Amino acid sequence: VIEFTEKDPYAPIAYVYEISDVLFDKKTAYQRIQVVENRFFGRMLLLDGIVQITDKDEFFYHEMLAHPVLHAHPDPRRVVVIGGGDGGTVREVLKHDTVEKVFFIEIDEEVIETSRRFFPKVSAGIDDPRVEVRPMDGAEFVKELADEVDAIIVDSTDIVGFAKVLFEESFFRSVNRALRAGGVYASHTESLHFHLNIVREVQEVLRRVFPVVDLYTASIATYGGNWWAFGCASKGGGFRDKVRPCKVPTRFYDEEVHRQAFLTPRLYDRLLRGELDW
Amino acid sequence: VIEFTEKDPYAPIAYVYEISDVLFDKKTAYQRIQVVENRFFGRMLLLDGIVQITDKDEFFYHEMLAHPVLHAHPDPRRVVVIGGGDGGTVREVLKHDTVEKVFFIEIDEEVIETSRRFFPKVSAGIDDPRVEVRPMDGAEFVKELADEVDAIIVDSTDIVGFAKVLFEESFFRSVNRALRAGGVYASHTESLHFHLNIVREVQEVLRRVFPVVDLYTASIATYGGNWWAFGCASKGGGFRDKVRPCKVPTRFYDEEVHRQAFLTPRLYDRLLRGELDW
Repeated sequence: VIEFTEKDPYAPIAYVYEISDVLFDKKTAYQRIQVVENRFFGRMLLLDGIVQITDKDEFFYHEMLAHPVLHAHPDPRRVVVIGGGDGGTVREVLKHDTVEKVFFIEIDEEVIETSRRFFPKVSAGIDDPRVEVRPMDGAEFVKELADEVDAIIVDSTDIVGFAKVLFEESFFRSVNRALRAGGVYASHTESLHFHLNIVREVQEVLRRVFPVVDLYTASIATYGGNWWAFGCASKGGGFRDKVRPCKVPTRFYDEEVHRQAFLTPRLYDRLLRGELDW
Repeated sequence: VIEFTEKDPYAPIAYVYEISDVLFDKKTAYQRIQVVENRFFGRMLLLDGIVQITDKDEFFYHEMLAHPVLHAHPDPRRVVVIGGGDGGTVREVLKHDTVEKVFFIEIDEEVIETSRRFFPKVSAGIDDPRVEVRPMDGAEFVKELADEVDAIIVDSTDIVGFAKVLFEESFFRSVNRALRAGGVYASHTESLHFHLNIVREVQEVLRRVFPVVDLYTASIATYGGNWWAFGCASKGGGFRDKVRPCKVPTRFYDEEVHRQAFLTPRLYDRLLRGELDW
Protein backbone atom coordinates (compact mmCIF):
# COMPACT_ATOMS: atom_id res chain seq x y z
CA VAL A 1 0.00 0.00 0.00
CA ILE A 2 1.27 3.42 -0.98
CA GLU A 3 0.40 6.44 1.11
CA PHE A 4 -0.26 9.83 -0.34
CA THR A 5 -0.06 12.82 2.01
CA GLU A 6 -1.74 16.06 1.02
CA LYS A 7 0.47 18.70 2.62
CA ASP A 8 -1.23 21.98 1.90
CA PRO A 9 1.09 24.67 3.30
CA TYR A 10 -2.00 26.74 4.18
CA ALA A 11 -3.78 24.00 6.12
CA PRO A 12 -2.92 22.98 9.70
CA ILE A 13 -3.83 19.33 9.10
CA ALA A 14 -2.20 17.13 6.47
CA TYR A 15 -4.46 14.43 5.05
CA VAL A 16 -3.13 10.93 4.38
CA TYR A 17 -4.80 8.59 1.90
CA GLU A 18 -3.95 4.98 1.20
CA ILE A 19 -3.43 4.61 -2.51
CA SER A 20 -3.93 1.30 -4.28
CA ASP A 21 -2.80 2.58 -7.68
CA VAL A 22 -1.27 5.60 -9.40
CA LEU A 23 -3.08 5.78 -12.75
CA PHE A 24 -1.57 8.97 -14.12
CA ASP A 25 1.23 11.37 -13.25
CA LYS A 26 2.35 14.20 -15.49
CA LYS A 27 3.82 17.67 -15.19
CA THR A 28 2.14 20.14 -17.54
CA ALA A 29 3.13 23.75 -18.27
CA TYR A 30 0.98 24.77 -15.30
CA GLN A 31 0.99 22.04 -12.70
CA ARG A 32 1.45 18.40 -11.84
CA ILE A 33 -1.60 16.28 -12.61
CA GLN A 34 -2.04 12.95 -10.82
CA VAL A 35 -4.84 10.43 -10.78
CA VAL A 36 -4.73 7.93 -7.95
CA GLU A 37 -7.07 5.27 -6.67
CA ASN A 38 -8.33 4.96 -3.09
CA ARG A 39 -10.58 2.20 -1.79
CA PHE A 40 -13.10 4.55 -0.18
CA PHE A 41 -13.03 7.57 -2.50
CA GLY A 42 -12.44 5.80 -5.80
CA ARG A 43 -10.39 7.75 -8.30
CA MET A 44 -8.94 11.03 -7.06
CA LEU A 45 -7.64 13.92 -9.17
CA LEU A 46 -4.69 15.80 -7.64
CA LEU A 47 -3.25 19.08 -8.89
CA ASP A 48 0.14 19.94 -7.43
CA GLY A 49 -0.51 17.38 -4.71
CA ILE A 50 -3.87 18.86 -3.61
CA VAL A 51 -7.05 16.79 -3.94
CA GLN A 52 -9.43 18.43 -6.44
CA ILE A 53 -12.15 15.83 -6.85
CA THR A 54 -12.86 12.23 -5.93
CA ASP A 55 -15.36 9.88 -7.57
CA LYS A 56 -17.17 9.49 -4.27
CA ASP A 57 -17.79 13.02 -3.14
CA GLU A 58 -17.30 15.36 -6.12
CA PHE A 59 -21.06 15.96 -6.43
CA PHE A 60 -21.23 17.84 -3.12
CA TYR A 61 -18.81 20.47 -4.34
CA HIS A 62 -20.02 20.71 -7.94
CA GLU A 63 -23.70 20.89 -7.03
CA MET A 64 -23.06 23.46 -4.32
CA LEU A 65 -20.89 25.61 -6.57
CA ALA A 66 -23.31 25.72 -9.51
CA HIS A 67 -26.88 25.44 -8.27
CA PRO A 68 -27.33 28.09 -5.57
CA VAL A 69 -26.54 31.00 -7.91
CA LEU A 70 -28.25 29.47 -10.95
CA HIS A 71 -31.43 28.95 -8.93
CA ALA A 72 -31.22 32.53 -7.69
CA HIS A 73 -31.21 33.78 -11.29
CA PRO A 74 -34.63 33.91 -12.97
CA ASP A 75 -33.48 32.69 -16.38
CA PRO A 76 -29.78 31.81 -16.78
CA ARG A 77 -29.00 31.38 -20.49
CA ARG A 78 -25.33 32.20 -21.02
CA VAL A 79 -22.86 30.94 -18.42
CA VAL A 80 -19.08 31.16 -18.04
CA VAL A 81 -17.25 28.47 -16.08
CA ILE A 82 -13.65 29.34 -15.26
CA GLY A 83 -11.41 26.48 -14.20
CA GLY A 84 -12.90 23.19 -13.14
CA GLY A 85 -11.19 21.41 -16.02
CA ASP A 86 -12.59 18.11 -14.74
CA GLY A 87 -15.96 19.22 -16.14
CA GLY A 88 -18.02 18.65 -13.00
CA THR A 89 -19.26 22.23 -12.75
CA VAL A 90 -20.09 22.30 -16.48
CA ARG A 91 -22.09 19.10 -15.99
CA GLU A 92 -24.18 20.75 -13.26
CA VAL A 93 -24.70 23.96 -15.26
CA LEU A 94 -25.98 21.97 -18.24
CA LYS A 95 -28.73 20.45 -16.10
CA HIS A 96 -30.53 23.80 -16.36
CA ASP A 97 -32.78 23.73 -19.43
CA THR A 98 -32.59 27.49 -19.75
CA VAL A 99 -28.85 27.33 -20.44
CA GLU A 100 -28.07 27.86 -24.13
CA LYS A 101 -24.33 28.46 -23.98
CA VAL A 102 -21.49 27.57 -21.61
CA PHE A 103 -18.07 29.13 -22.11
CA PHE A 104 -15.73 26.67 -20.44
CA ILE A 105 -12.44 28.49 -19.79
CA GLU A 106 -9.71 26.18 -18.52
CA ILE A 107 -6.12 27.36 -18.68
CA ASP A 108 -4.68 23.83 -18.64
CA GLU A 109 -6.20 21.66 -21.38
CA GLU A 110 -4.42 18.64 -20.02
CA VAL A 111 -6.75 18.67 -17.01
CA ILE A 112 -9.68 18.34 -19.38
CA GLU A 113 -8.01 15.49 -21.24
CA THR A 114 -7.17 13.73 -17.99
CA SER A 115 -10.77 14.00 -16.81
CA ARG A 116 -12.12 12.68 -20.12
CA ARG A 117 -9.86 9.67 -19.70
CA PHE A 118 -10.26 8.89 -16.00
CA PHE A 119 -13.48 10.57 -14.83
CA PRO A 120 -16.07 9.91 -17.54
CA LYS A 121 -19.04 10.69 -15.27
CA VAL A 122 -17.56 14.03 -14.28
CA SER A 123 -16.44 15.09 -17.76
CA ALA A 124 -19.59 13.84 -19.50
CA GLY A 125 -20.95 17.31 -20.27
CA ILE A 126 -17.87 18.72 -21.98
CA ASP A 127 -18.92 17.48 -25.42
CA ASP A 128 -22.41 18.91 -25.14
CA PRO A 129 -23.00 21.18 -28.16
CA ARG A 130 -23.84 24.08 -25.84
CA VAL A 131 -20.28 24.01 -24.45
CA GLU A 132 -17.46 26.02 -26.00
CA VAL A 133 -14.06 25.17 -24.57
CA ARG A 134 -11.48 27.97 -24.49
CA PRO A 135 -8.04 26.98 -23.24
CA MET A 136 -6.98 30.33 -21.81
CA ASP A 137 -6.67 32.52 -18.74
CA GLY A 138 -10.15 33.09 -17.27
CA ALA A 139 -9.38 36.67 -16.26
CA GLU A 140 -8.35 37.50 -19.84
CA PHE A 141 -11.51 35.94 -21.24
CA VAL A 142 -13.85 37.80 -18.90
CA LYS A 143 -12.08 41.11 -19.55
CA GLU A 144 -13.34 41.06 -23.13
CA LEU A 145 -17.01 40.63 -22.19
CA ALA A 146 -19.50 43.43 -21.61
CA ASP A 147 -23.13 42.84 -20.66
CA GLU A 148 -23.02 39.41 -22.24
CA VAL A 149 -23.58 36.58 -19.79
CA ASP A 150 -25.91 35.65 -16.93
CA ALA A 151 -23.59 33.74 -14.62
CA ILE A 152 -19.85 33.45 -14.06
CA ILE A 153 -18.77 30.54 -11.94
CA VAL A 154 -15.15 30.25 -10.84
CA ASP A 155 -14.04 26.71 -10.07
CA SER A 156 -10.41 27.40 -9.28
CA THR A 157 -7.66 25.69 -7.35
CA ASP A 158 -6.78 27.14 -3.94
CA ILE A 159 -6.55 30.92 -3.70
CA VAL A 160 -2.78 30.93 -3.98
CA GLY A 161 -0.47 30.49 -6.96
CA PHE A 162 -1.90 31.19 -10.39
CA ALA A 163 -5.53 31.25 -9.26
CA LYS A 164 -4.85 34.35 -7.10
CA VAL A 165 -5.76 36.78 -9.91
CA LEU A 166 -9.31 35.36 -9.85
CA PHE A 167 -9.90 36.85 -6.40
CA GLU A 168 -8.66 40.38 -6.95
CA GLU A 169 -10.83 43.48 -7.23
CA SER A 170 -9.87 44.09 -10.88
CA PHE A 171 -11.17 40.65 -11.81
CA PHE A 172 -14.42 41.17 -9.92
CA ARG A 173 -14.87 44.47 -11.81
CA SER A 174 -14.49 42.56 -15.09
CA VAL A 175 -17.03 40.01 -13.87
CA ASN A 176 -19.45 42.78 -12.97
CA ARG A 177 -19.07 44.36 -16.41
CA ALA A 178 -19.38 41.01 -18.18
CA LEU A 179 -22.68 40.16 -16.50
CA ARG A 180 -26.04 41.22 -17.89
CA ALA A 181 -28.71 42.70 -15.61
CA GLY A 182 -29.55 40.21 -12.87
CA GLY A 183 -26.29 38.35 -13.46
CA VAL A 184 -24.74 36.19 -10.75
CA TYR A 185 -21.26 35.09 -9.71
CA ALA A 186 -20.03 32.23 -7.49
CA SER A 187 -16.72 30.84 -6.37
CA HIS A 188 -15.34 28.75 -3.55
CA THR A 189 -13.42 30.78 -0.98
CA GLU A 190 -11.61 28.19 1.15
CA SER A 191 -12.53 26.89 4.64
CA LEU A 192 -14.40 28.68 7.42
CA HIS A 193 -12.45 26.58 9.90
CA PHE A 194 -8.97 27.15 8.50
CA HIS A 195 -9.08 30.36 6.44
CA LEU A 196 -11.46 32.75 8.16
CA ASN A 197 -9.38 35.74 7.00
CA ILE A 198 -9.41 34.69 3.34
CA VAL A 199 -13.16 34.09 3.46
CA ARG A 200 -13.67 37.54 4.94
CA GLU A 201 -11.28 39.31 2.58
CA VAL A 202 -12.97 37.88 -0.50
CA GLN A 203 -16.33 39.03 0.86
CA GLU A 204 -14.95 42.52 1.44
CA VAL A 205 -13.55 42.81 -2.06
CA LEU A 206 -16.78 41.48 -3.59
CA ARG A 207 -18.78 44.04 -1.59
CA ARG A 208 -16.74 46.87 -3.06
CA VAL A 209 -17.90 45.78 -6.52
CA PHE A 210 -21.37 44.19 -6.31
CA PRO A 211 -24.63 45.47 -4.80
CA VAL A 212 -25.51 42.01 -3.44
CA VAL A 213 -22.91 39.69 -1.91
CA ASP A 214 -23.44 36.61 0.22
CA LEU A 215 -21.79 33.51 1.62
CA TYR A 216 -22.85 29.90 1.95
CA THR A 217 -21.08 26.73 3.03
CA ALA A 218 -20.97 22.98 2.51
CA SER A 219 -19.06 20.27 4.34
CA ILE A 220 -16.56 18.53 2.06
CA ALA A 221 -14.39 15.83 3.61
CA THR A 222 -11.58 15.92 1.06
CA TYR A 223 -10.90 19.67 1.17
CA GLY A 224 -8.67 20.78 4.03
CA GLY A 225 -10.70 22.39 6.78
CA ASN A 226 -13.78 20.94 5.09
CA TRP A 227 -16.32 23.57 6.19
CA TRP A 228 -16.12 24.94 2.70
CA ALA A 229 -17.17 28.53 2.00
CA PHE A 230 -18.62 29.84 -1.26
CA GLY A 231 -18.81 33.53 -2.07
CA CYS A 232 -21.56 34.72 -4.37
CA ALA A 233 -22.60 38.05 -5.80
CA SER A 234 -25.44 39.41 -7.89
CA LYS A 235 -26.38 42.42 -9.99
CA GLY A 236 -30.03 41.60 -9.31
CA GLY A 237 -31.86 40.03 -6.40
CA GLY A 238 -30.52 38.32 -3.31
CA PHE A 239 -29.82 34.64 -2.78
CA ARG A 240 -31.85 33.86 0.34
CA ASP A 241 -35.40 34.53 -0.81
CA LYS A 242 -37.46 33.99 -3.94
CA VAL A 243 -35.14 31.27 -5.18
CA ARG A 244 -36.56 29.07 -7.92
CA PRO A 245 -37.54 25.58 -6.75
CA CYS A 246 -34.99 22.93 -7.66
CA LYS A 247 -36.16 21.00 -10.71
CA VAL A 248 -32.78 19.66 -11.83
CA PRO A 249 -31.73 16.13 -10.80
CA THR A 250 -29.30 16.31 -7.87
CA ARG A 251 -27.92 14.02 -5.20
CA PHE A 252 -27.56 16.68 -2.50
CA TYR A 253 -28.76 20.14 -3.49
CA ASP A 254 -32.38 21.18 -3.23
CA GLU A 255 -34.17 24.36 -2.15
CA GLU A 256 -34.07 23.32 1.50
CA VAL A 257 -30.32 22.64 1.34
CA HIS A 258 -30.03 26.04 -0.36
CA ARG A 259 -31.79 27.78 2.52
CA GLN A 260 -29.70 25.99 5.12
CA ALA A 261 -26.41 26.65 3.40
CA PHE A 262 -26.27 30.42 3.80
CA LEU A 263 -24.40 31.59 6.86
CA THR A 264 -26.84 32.78 9.52
CA PRO A 265 -27.34 36.57 9.67
CA ARG A 266 -25.68 36.76 13.08
CA LEU A 267 -22.59 34.79 12.05
CA TYR A 268 -22.36 36.60 8.71
CA ASP A 269 -22.51 39.98 10.38
CA ARG A 270 -19.84 38.96 12.86
CA LEU A 271 -17.66 37.63 10.02
CA LEU A 272 -17.81 40.97 8.21
CA ARG A 273 -17.00 42.88 11.38
CA GLY A 274 -14.04 40.58 12.04
CA GLU A 275 -15.65 39.31 15.22
CA LEU A 276 -15.72 35.61 14.51
CA ASP A 277 -13.28 34.38 17.09
CA TRP A 278 -11.92 31.12 15.82
CA VAL B 1 8.89 19.25 14.88
CA ILE B 2 7.11 16.06 15.87
CA GLU B 3 4.25 14.75 13.78
CA PHE B 4 1.24 13.06 15.24
CA THR B 5 -0.92 10.96 12.90
CA GLU B 6 -4.46 10.16 13.88
CA LYS B 7 -5.06 6.77 12.28
CA ASP B 8 -8.66 5.94 13.00
CA PRO B 9 -9.21 2.43 11.62
CA TYR B 10 -12.80 3.45 10.74
CA ALA B 11 -11.84 6.59 8.77
CA PRO B 12 -10.53 6.60 5.20
CA ILE B 13 -8.33 9.65 5.80
CA ALA B 14 -5.60 9.82 8.44
CA TYR B 15 -5.01 13.29 9.86
CA VAL B 16 -1.47 14.52 10.53
CA TYR B 17 -0.76 17.33 13.01
CA GLU B 18 2.56 19.02 13.70
CA ILE B 19 3.16 18.86 17.40
CA SER B 20 5.36 21.38 19.19
CA ASP B 21 5.10 19.70 22.58
CA VAL B 22 3.80 16.58 24.29
CA LEU B 23 2.49 17.82 27.63
CA PHE B 24 1.03 14.62 29.02
CA ASP B 25 1.02 10.93 28.14
CA LYS B 26 -0.42 8.25 30.38
CA LYS B 27 -2.11 4.88 30.10
CA THR B 28 -5.08 4.56 32.45
CA ALA B 29 -7.20 1.49 33.17
CA TYR B 30 -9.37 2.44 30.19
CA GLN B 31 -7.28 4.21 27.58
CA ARG B 32 -4.19 6.19 26.72
CA ILE B 33 -4.55 9.91 27.51
CA GLN B 34 -2.30 12.40 25.72
CA VAL B 35 -2.19 16.17 25.69
CA VAL B 36 -0.21 17.69 22.84
CA GLU B 37 0.31 21.22 21.58
CA ASN B 38 -0.26 22.38 17.99
CA ARG B 39 0.37 25.89 16.69
CA PHE B 40 -3.05 26.28 15.08
CA PHE B 41 -5.30 24.27 17.40
CA GLY B 42 -3.56 24.97 20.71
CA ARG B 43 -3.74 22.13 23.19
CA MET B 44 -5.29 18.92 21.96
CA LEU B 45 -6.67 16.04 24.06
CA LEU B 46 -6.18 12.58 22.54
CA LEU B 47 -7.75 9.35 23.80
CA ASP B 48 -6.22 6.21 22.32
CA GLY B 49 -4.71 8.38 19.61
CA ILE B 50 -8.00 9.97 18.53
CA VAL B 51 -8.46 13.74 18.85
CA GLN B 52 -11.25 14.50 21.35
CA ILE B 53 -11.02 18.24 21.76
CA THR B 54 -8.74 21.13 20.83
CA ASP B 55 -8.57 24.56 22.46
CA LYS B 56 -9.43 26.19 19.16
CA ASP B 57 -12.54 24.38 18.04
CA GLU B 58 -14.01 22.49 21.01
CA PHE B 59 -16.88 24.97 21.32
CA PHE B 60 -18.44 23.88 18.00
CA TYR B 61 -18.88 20.34 19.23
CA HIS B 62 -19.84 21.11 22.83
CA GLU B 63 -22.36 23.79 21.91
CA MET B 64 -23.91 21.65 19.21
CA LEU B 65 -24.14 18.60 21.46
CA ALA B 66 -25.79 20.37 24.40
CA HIS B 67 -27.89 23.27 23.16
CA PRO B 68 -30.21 21.90 20.46
CA VAL B 69 -31.91 19.43 22.79
CA LEU B 70 -31.86 21.71 25.84
CA HIS B 71 -33.51 24.48 23.82
CA ALA B 72 -36.11 22.02 22.57
CA HIS B 73 -37.05 21.19 26.18
CA PRO B 74 -39.35 23.72 27.85
CA ASP B 75 -37.68 23.62 31.26
CA PRO B 76 -34.62 21.37 31.67
CA ARG B 77 -33.79 21.04 35.37
CA ARG B 78 -32.05 17.72 35.92
CA VAL B 79 -29.50 16.66 33.31
CA VAL B 80 -27.22 13.62 32.94
CA VAL B 81 -23.98 13.98 30.98
CA ILE B 82 -22.31 10.65 30.17
CA GLY B 83 -18.68 10.80 29.12
CA GLY B 84 -17.13 14.07 28.05
CA GLY B 85 -14.65 13.92 30.91
CA ASP B 86 -13.05 17.12 29.64
CA GLY B 87 -16.09 18.98 31.05
CA GLY B 88 -16.99 20.91 27.89
CA THR B 89 -20.51 19.55 27.64
CA VAL B 90 -21.11 20.12 31.36
CA ARG B 91 -19.96 23.73 30.89
CA GLU B 92 -22.57 24.25 28.15
CA VAL B 93 -25.35 22.57 30.15
CA LEU B 94 -24.65 24.83 33.13
CA LYS B 95 -25.28 27.92 30.99
CA HIS B 96 -28.99 27.13 31.25
CA ASP B 97 -30.38 28.89 34.33
CA THR B 98 -33.14 26.31 34.64
CA VAL B 99 -30.62 23.56 35.33
CA GLU B 100 -30.52 22.62 39.01
CA LYS B 101 -28.56 19.39 38.85
CA VAL B 102 -26.03 17.80 36.50
CA PHE B 103 -25.03 14.19 36.99
CA PHE B 104 -21.63 13.97 35.33
CA ILE B 105 -20.89 10.28 34.67
CA GLU B 106 -17.36 9.69 33.41
CA ILE B 107 -15.94 6.20 33.57
CA ASP B 108 -12.31 7.38 33.54
CA GLU B 109 -11.64 9.94 36.28
CA GLU B 110 -8.19 10.55 34.91
CA VAL B 111 -9.71 12.30 31.89
CA ILE B 112 -11.35 14.76 34.28
CA GLU B 113 -8.08 15.32 36.14
CA THR B 114 -6.21 15.82 32.87
CA SER B 115 -8.75 18.37 31.70
CA ARG B 116 -8.64 20.27 34.99
CA ARG B 117 -4.87 20.51 34.61
CA PHE B 118 -4.51 21.29 30.88
CA PHE B 119 -7.90 22.66 29.71
CA PRO B 120 -9.06 25.06 32.44
CA LYS B 121 -11.58 26.83 30.17
CA VAL B 122 -13.17 23.54 29.17
CA SER B 123 -13.25 22.00 32.64
CA ALA B 124 -14.33 25.22 34.39
CA GLY B 125 -17.86 24.00 35.16
CA ILE B 126 -16.94 20.74 36.86
CA ASP B 127 -16.67 22.36 40.30
CA ASP B 128 -20.02 24.10 40.02
CA PRO B 129 -22.14 23.07 43.05
CA ARG B 130 -24.88 21.84 40.73
CA VAL B 131 -22.53 19.18 39.35
CA GLU B 132 -22.25 15.73 40.90
CA VAL B 133 -19.39 13.68 39.47
CA ARG B 134 -19.89 9.91 39.38
CA PRO B 135 -16.89 7.93 38.13
CA MET B 136 -18.76 4.95 36.72
CA ASP B 137 -20.25 3.30 33.63
CA GLY B 138 -22.90 5.56 32.16
CA ALA B 139 -25.16 2.67 31.16
CA GLU B 140 -25.11 1.35 34.74
CA PHE B 141 -25.97 4.78 36.13
CA VAL B 142 -28.90 5.35 33.78
CA LYS B 143 -30.28 1.86 34.44
CA GLU B 144 -31.05 2.87 38.04
CA LEU B 145 -33.10 5.95 37.10
CA ALA B 146 -36.86 6.02 36.52
CA ASP B 147 -38.75 9.17 35.57
CA GLU B 148 -36.06 11.31 37.18
CA VAL B 149 -34.25 13.57 34.69
CA ASP B 150 -35.06 15.94 31.83
CA ALA B 151 -32.11 15.40 29.53
CA ILE B 152 -29.47 12.73 28.97
CA ILE B 153 -26.53 13.78 26.83
CA VAL B 154 -23.98 11.21 25.74
CA ASP B 155 -20.55 12.65 24.97
CA SER B 156 -18.73 9.43 24.18
CA THR B 157 -15.66 8.44 22.26
CA ASP B 158 -16.21 6.84 18.85
CA ILE B 159 -18.94 4.21 18.60
CA VAL B 160 -16.51 1.35 18.89
CA GLY B 161 -14.69 -0.16 21.85
CA PHE B 162 -16.13 0.47 25.29
CA ALA B 163 -18.54 3.22 24.15
CA LYS B 164 -20.46 0.70 22.01
CA VAL B 165 -22.88 -0.17 24.81
CA LEU B 166 -24.11 3.46 24.76
CA PHE B 167 -25.62 2.96 21.30
CA GLU B 168 -27.53 -0.28 21.85
CA GLU B 169 -31.29 -0.62 22.15
CA SER B 170 -31.14 -1.74 25.77
CA PHE B 171 -29.34 1.47 26.70
CA PHE B 172 -31.84 3.61 24.82
CA ARG B 173 -34.64 1.83 26.70
CA SER B 174 -32.93 2.76 29.97
CA VAL B 175 -32.65 6.35 28.77
CA ASN B 176 -36.32 6.41 27.87
CA ARG B 177 -37.26 5.09 31.31
CA ALA B 178 -34.92 7.50 33.07
CA LEU B 179 -36.42 10.58 31.39
CA ARG B 180 -39.38 12.46 32.79
CA ALA B 181 -42.26 13.53 30.51
CA GLY B 182 -40.89 15.77 27.76
CA GLY B 183 -37.36 14.50 28.35
CA VAL B 184 -34.71 14.70 25.64
CA TYR B 185 -31.63 12.76 24.60
CA ALA B 186 -28.66 13.67 22.40
CA SER B 187 -25.45 12.03 21.27
CA HIS B 188 -22.96 12.33 18.44
CA THR B 189 -23.28 9.54 15.89
CA GLU B 190 -20.13 9.84 13.74
CA SER B 191 -19.73 11.38 10.27
CA LEU B 192 -22.29 11.65 7.48
CA HIS B 193 -19.43 11.53 5.00
CA PHE B 194 -17.62 8.51 6.40
CA HIS B 195 -20.15 6.53 8.45
CA LEU B 196 -23.51 6.79 6.75
CA ASN B 197 -24.45 3.29 7.89
CA ILE B 198 -23.66 3.97 11.54
CA VAL B 199 -25.62 7.22 11.43
CA ARG B 200 -28.59 5.38 9.96
CA GLU B 201 -28.39 2.41 12.31
CA VAL B 202 -28.40 4.63 15.39
CA GLN B 203 -31.45 6.45 14.03
CA GLU B 204 -33.22 3.14 13.46
CA VAL B 205 -32.54 1.88 16.96
CA LEU B 206 -33.61 5.21 18.49
CA ARG B 207 -36.84 5.08 16.49
CA ARG B 208 -37.69 1.68 17.97
CA VAL B 209 -37.63 3.29 21.42
CA PHE B 210 -38.64 6.96 21.22
CA PRO B 211 -41.72 8.63 19.72
CA VAL B 212 -39.65 11.53 18.35
CA VAL B 213 -36.20 11.05 16.81
CA ASP B 214 -34.18 13.44 14.69
CA LEU B 215 -30.75 14.19 13.28
CA TYR B 216 -28.68 17.32 12.94
CA THR B 217 -25.12 18.02 11.87
CA ALA B 218 -22.19 20.35 12.39
CA SER B 219 -18.89 20.63 10.56
CA ILE B 220 -15.95 19.86 12.83
CA ALA B 221 -12.47 19.95 11.30
CA THR B 222 -10.74 17.75 13.85
CA TYR B 223 -13.16 14.82 13.74
CA GLY B 224 -12.56 12.39 10.88
CA GLY B 225 -15.10 12.93 8.12
CA ASN B 226 -16.00 16.19 9.81
CA TRP B 227 -19.65 16.44 8.72
CA TRP B 228 -20.58 15.39 12.20
CA ALA B 229 -23.99 13.89 12.90
CA PHE B 230 -25.90 14.13 16.16
CA GLY B 231 -28.84 11.91 16.95
CA CYS B 232 -31.54 13.23 19.28
CA ALA B 233 -34.75 11.87 20.71
CA SER B 234 -37.63 13.15 22.79
CA LYS B 235 -40.53 11.94 24.91
CA GLY B 236 -42.26 15.25 24.22
CA GLY B 237 -42.25 17.68 21.30
CA GLY B 238 -40.06 17.75 18.22
CA PHE B 239 -36.81 19.58 17.66
CA ARG B 240 -37.52 21.63 14.56
CA ASP B 241 -40.34 23.90 15.71
CA LYS B 242 -41.24 25.82 18.84
CA VAL B 243 -37.69 25.80 20.08
CA ARG B 244 -36.93 28.33 22.83
CA PRO B 245 -34.87 31.32 21.66
CA CYS B 246 -31.21 31.09 22.55
CA LYS B 247 -30.49 33.23 25.61
CA VAL B 248 -27.29 31.53 26.73
CA PRO B 249 -23.91 32.99 25.71
CA THR B 250 -22.48 31.03 22.79
CA ARG B 251 -19.84 31.46 20.10
CA PHE B 252 -21.65 29.47 17.39
CA TYR B 253 -25.06 28.14 18.38
CA ASP B 254 -28.18 30.24 18.13
CA GLU B 255 -31.77 29.56 17.05
CA GLU B 256 -30.91 30.16 13.39
CA VAL B 257 -27.97 27.72 13.55
CA HIS B 258 -30.38 25.30 15.25
CA ARG B 259 -32.85 25.53 12.36
CA GLN B 260 -30.12 25.08 9.77
CA ALA B 261 -28.50 22.14 11.52
CA PHE B 262 -31.29 19.60 11.10
CA LEU B 263 -30.98 17.41 8.04
CA THR B 264 -33.48 18.51 5.38
CA PRO B 265 -36.68 16.44 5.23
CA ARG B 266 -35.74 15.05 1.81
CA LEU B 267 -32.26 13.95 2.85
CA TYR B 268 -33.48 12.62 6.20
CA ASP B 269 -36.17 10.58 4.53
CA ARG B 270 -33.66 9.17 2.04
CA LEU B 271 -31.24 8.37 4.89
CA LEU B 272 -33.89 6.33 6.70
CA ARG B 273 -34.82 4.49 3.54
CA GLY B 274 -31.16 3.70 2.86
CA GLU B 275 -31.23 5.75 -0.31
CA LEU B 276 -28.45 8.20 0.38
CA ASP B 277 -25.94 7.12 -2.19
CA TRP B 278 -22.54 8.20 -0.91
